[in-house]
Amino acid sequence: MDSVCPVLLHAHTVYIATHVSPDGDAIGSSLGLALALGALGKRCTVACADPAPPPVSGLPGAKMIVAHPPSNQDVIVVLDTGDVSRLGSLYTPESFSGRPVINIDHHLSNTRFGTINIIDAQAAAVGEMVHTLVVAMGVPLNSMIATCLLTAIVTDTIGFRTSSTTPNVLRTAAALMEAGASLTDIVQQSFESRPLPVLRVWGDVLSNFHARNGVAWATISRQLLELHGVKDDEIKGLVNILRGTQGIVVSALIMESTDGTVKVEFRSNGQVNVAAIAIALGGGGHRAASGCTMKAPLAEVEQRVLDEINKQLRP
Amino acid sequence: MDSVCPVLLHAHTVYIATHVSPDGDAIGSSLGLALALGALGKRCTVACADPAPPPVSGLPGAKMIVAHPPSNQDVIVVLDTGDVSRLGSLYTPESFSGRPVINIDHHLSNTRFGTINIIDAQAAAVGEMVHTLVVAMGVPLNSMIATCLLTAIVTDTIGFRTSSTTPNVLRTAAALMEAGASLTDIVQQSFESRPLPVLRVWGDVLSNFHARNGVAWATISRQLLELHGVKDDEIKGLVNILRGTQGIVVSALIMESTDGTVKVEFRSNGQVNVAAIAIALGGGGHRAASGCTMKAPLAEVEQRVLDEINKQLRP
Repeated sequence: MDSVCPVLLHAHTVYIATHVSPDGDAIGSSLGLALALGALGKRCTVACADPAPPPVSGLPGAKMIVAHPPSNQDVIVVLDTGDVSRLGSLYTPESFSGRPVINIDHHLSNTRFGTINIIDAQAAAVGEMVHTLVVAMGVPLNSMIATCLLTAIVTDTIGFRTSSTTPNVLRTAAALMEAGASLTDIVQQSFESRPLPVLRVWGDVLSNFHARNGVAWATISRQLLELHGVKDDEIKGLVNILRGTQGIVVSALIMESTDGTVKVEFRSNGQVNVAAIAIALGGGGHRAASGCTMKAPLAEVEQRVLDEINKQLRP
Repeated sequence: MDSVCPVLLHAHTVYIATHVSPDGDAIGSSLGLALALGALGKRCTVACADPAPPPVSGLPGAKMIVAHPPSNQDVIVVLDTGDVSRLGSLYTPESFSGRPVINIDHHLSNTRFGTINIIDAQAAAVGEMVHTLVVAMGVPLNSMIATCLLTAIVTDTIGFRTSSTTPNVLRTAAALMEAGASLTDIVQQSFESRPLPVLRVWGDVLSNFHARNGVAWATISRQLLELHGVKDDEIKGLVNILRGTQGIVVSALIMESTDGTVKVEFRSNGQVNVAAIAIALGGGGHRAASGCTMKAPLAEVEQRVLDEINKQLRP
């Protein structure tokens, strides 16, 4: 972070952008950094092309997130974003030129699009990297910064359950708790607050999913979602449950969206690189967690997903 | 732990006992303490009236666990056990007399049956207390001790998700990882390795459970378990999913056992004391997690459980 600190400390105004379909790490790390820079007197704009979903829609500053490209800010910071295309409508070549672009990310596939690139594929969450940056800038943690960063870490590690969870992640989380973040609240909001209709969909999927040759998969049709009045973005964590079936090394959840596309989530036990599977299908992600969006009928997507998994599993 | 160290350091032989129907904390903390005392040259016997279940059946030393009362050991240590009745066949008044009985526990309801009682209801797991003891005795951690104690902590906090998870719990876990325990392996074995038939039972329960006035509950009949070839002790974690339904403050999972009894598990969001509910029905536990065993038909147990919850919720 040595190269980043002076650039940020000299800036008066900072534009912080993160990826479309933002998750807890995208929003939590962006708001945490904005609050920390705010404590140093900088004026920050946090931007995301899509709205922040629950549970992060309730984080401090979430209501101030904008969806437009940068204007005349001194510095641009892009967080948790492997490629500028993932910024959606925030990115235009013109608006991103003529000033430092600080690219802070933990995606292995990051395209190093910044003028300064801090890429740490070992980091469990960008929230962990932002914590290091905040400490390096000498900003004392407060409960708002800590809540944003702990939310980032807890959501991206699925509550310290991913293989990316290191002793440093746990010590960072301990420090953030001591600064005033409530782990209990964050865990409850992130993982333990599912609408009843969502659990009915879970019930249907768990009763019917397929498990064969180390692969567990399920499809979720619009019909099933509409039957229970559930939106596709409310289905979270289920792909991890499928992955946790005994003897399963890869799981896939294949779901029809309202916009006519089919979203696919992949998880692996770490032995298989599901980023490669997602990239082959036009998506991206990490070794143990990845995803893609496809435009084809559900049954066709299911077949292509299974073919691609089999290629990766039995090359 | 100041009163415990000299007693243990002077002993040559130690009998370590834990409760019937042992969980990860009972077995993990017992084996961790035995390994640590073994490193000091003590001869230890670990005892439990019931066999260690997966995932803890694979912990170092688990194969050596006995099911008989103490013989002539110098000191008795009882771990994670609120009352001697919970030792089952290990306890006889004669075999527990005439030598120090060290009672180390984190149950609020502990009856202080020891000659030395170290009761810390704030501790997330007895494994956390044993870690403090091991450090206080000057035993260097190794990967076997660390694996046992981290398993104890991870299982009792449901992977750092209970409200008992403090910064100290996270730092202890970080230290245990650095001593060689694999958090990934422990998490996978504890939470992410469910047989497919168990997930089919989950599917049925999530499709059919009741949720009303802040209470979520489900019954699991022997018929359902036998349909899928599942044993009642394989159903773990489901009561937490029920508790995580939006708007739910208390959950209960009511399950027919092979032995003709009905087992009930309770969880709360911390606002409601489910220990009181379980105690009223002849069981015990903690504020946010408790349980009881009843001998009555499933429908009758369901009614008594709901009555007792309502008494506690709306006194």
